[in-house]
Amino acid sequence: MTKEELTHALQHKIDNKTKPTGSLGQLERIALQLGLIQQTLSPQMENPAMFVFAADHGLADEGISPYPKEVTWQMAMNFMKGGAAINVFCRQHDIQIKIVDAGVDFDFPEDSPVIRAKIARGTRNMRHEPAMTTDECQRALEQGAQLVRETSANGCNVIGFGEMGIGNTSASSLLMHKFTGYSIEVCTGRGAGLQDAALDRKTRLLKEVAEKYTTETPLETLATFGGLEIAMMCGGMLEAANLGMVVLVDGFIATAAALTACQFEPEVRDNLFFCHTSDEKGHRLMLSYMKAEPVLNLGLRLGEGTGAALAYPLLVSATKFINEMASFDEAGVSSK
Amino acid sequence: MTKEELTHALQHKIDNKTKPTGSLGQLERIALQLGLIQQTLSPQMENPAMFVFAADHGLADEGISPYPKEVTWQMAMNFMKGGAAINVFCRQHDIQIKIVDAGVDFDFPEDSPVIRAKIARGTRNMRHEPAMTTDECQRALEQGAQLVRETSANGCNVIGFGEMGIGNTSASSLLMHKFTGYSIEVCTGRGAGLQDAALDRKTRLLKEVAEKYTTETPLETLATFGGLEIAMMCGGMLEAANLGMVVLVDGFIATAAALTACQFEPEVRDNLFFCHTSDEKGHRLMLSYMKAEPVLNLGLRLGEGTGAALAYPLLVSATKFINEMASFDEAGVSSK
Repeated sequence: MTKEELTHALQHKIDNKTKPTGSLGQLERIALQLGLIQQTLSPQMENPAMFVFAADHGLADEGISPYPKEVTWQMAMNFMKGGAAINVFCRQHDIQIKIVDAGVDFDFPEDSPVIRAKIARGTRNMRHEPAMTTDECQRALEQGAQLVRETSANGCNVIGFGEMGIGNTSASSLLMHKFTGYSIEVCTGRGAGLQDAALDRKTRLLKEVAEKYTTETPLETLATFGGLEIAMMCGGMLEAANLGMVVLVDGFIATAAALTACQFEPEVRDNLFFCHTSDEKGHRLMLSYMKAEPVLNLGLRLGEGTGAALAYPLLVSATKFINEMASFDEAGVSSK
Repeated sequence: MTKEELTHALQHKIDNKTKPTGSLGQLERIALQLGLIQQTLSPQMENPAMFVFAADHGLADEGISPYPKEVTWQMAMNFMKGGAAINVFCRQHDIQIKIVDAGVDFDFPEDSPVIRAKIARGTRNMRHEPAMTTDECQRALEQGAQLVRETSANGCNVIGFGEMGIGNTSASSLLMHKFTGYSIEVCTGRGAGLQDAALDRKTRLLKEVAEKYTTETPLETLATFGGLEIAMMCGGMLEAANLGMVVLVDGFIATAAALTACQFEPEVRDNLFFCHTSDEKGHRLMLSYMKAEPVLNLGLRLGEGTGAALAYPLLVSATKFINEMASFDEAGVSSK
């Protein structure tokens, strides 16, 4: 079947379910997109996984977060012990969680159940030099792709992308600014909870950093302004789309990774589900720039993949209605 | 503990979880409300049930729906066979579904797994006479309360309220108009999918009906303009709140039942969760009138309780984060 024929066949199947035409709203559009990604009239979610990429940021030395940098490794340990929000929601929905050390400035104990993919002990301070070399960035992209390939080989067809990294809203705001052209002011928000004066300082600092470097390619831009966890997410998303997987994009930082992935390969967009609109300033605008129709709008601003895990059951609902609902004919119900 | 002390203790518990303050957004407010309803620091969802109340409407004779009236009993049969959207979503989330014949103009086969609570074979045509007598309406209210009491006695502490009834957006629009004072024009929408000319006709007809009767009490208003399924939902919600249960309000029609319940007993409001903003015109305004913060906004307009079933896992998530997440102290994570 061509894409056009499959689209038509999926829409026909959806419209013949026992409900007024279009009355399942966004769930119908999700079912259609899932069918197109999986190239089937009966999309299924199989062995869902959530990757949480953790890394540190050199720019955190400038005091751009209300939390100290140690919180990155402390929260990663919390993920491994099962006590964070993302653990709770993944357990609720039978999503396998994988914690990845993409570049945390900490030596995790030997028995820690962490995926060891450390490229460096955090990025460099962008106020003084680019966050990563292009070589480091390239290795982070490839590492993300490799992790996704292994997970796909184990029968997973839907992956959530989440992150932890004190300072990573700053990197995300810079990437948004560079790729969309929106001003630093509209791209910069409170992150984990900055007050007004600290937000002003963060905004001025990001303006200074943005003006310091000129970059040409998506790789250069990502290396200069990004983060190791963002690069690894980006590489993972590129490979997941390449493998025909469903990609669950979490909040502001994951969306910046998705935006970056689309600079490398615009077709990635077809595989992305934007799971929620967060309260981080700039997120709504970045979503709108990407023509996203987010699933949830709960005022979250936590990251970790929490919005992706919370939206996941709604994607499952979309597969279930298209697979399990009776048609008008099957149920003996009169149509209009 | 007083309500104020419990509120404070719940907020303290929420704020000490390993996350930035307030970063779980609406889920935090849901957890707080659940704790207050259940009067505990550890709210739990137990044996969730979904009631789908079905009934016919005399006003359907005036051609106010694009579907024939037979669809009410046909869809009720579909519910019993498990082929409708509400069945699919209740199965997904382990919600027990109960189909109630509140007043369908049909004799269900003897072996049908329907709860037989028929007050009449549909309401009367309001264009000519009130939909119900106050006695019929009172019996429907009491029947709804009785069903909820039985379910509560079986260990259920959370009930979803859904409905099926060709013509019931008209009754809901009239109740909204009478209780809120908003004009018939803003209260009246396309229901199951009316085109422009038919919507104009429906609006004119509802204006005529609204002007025909003057009512004083909530009971009189409900009897005159409501429906048997709406009255039964209203009685069920009143009793559920009285028993300290969590009430999941579905779409436009269930919200009209909730609005009516609040006319009888304003405190019911504390137990209501408004599960979604539907695409039916008037719903957003009615939600705003009730100071609701709906959980989902998926453009649904199906009824049956589907929005309530889809929102349910998010309420479960709220109980899980407050019960299962580690505190900063427990996890050894630095706070601000």
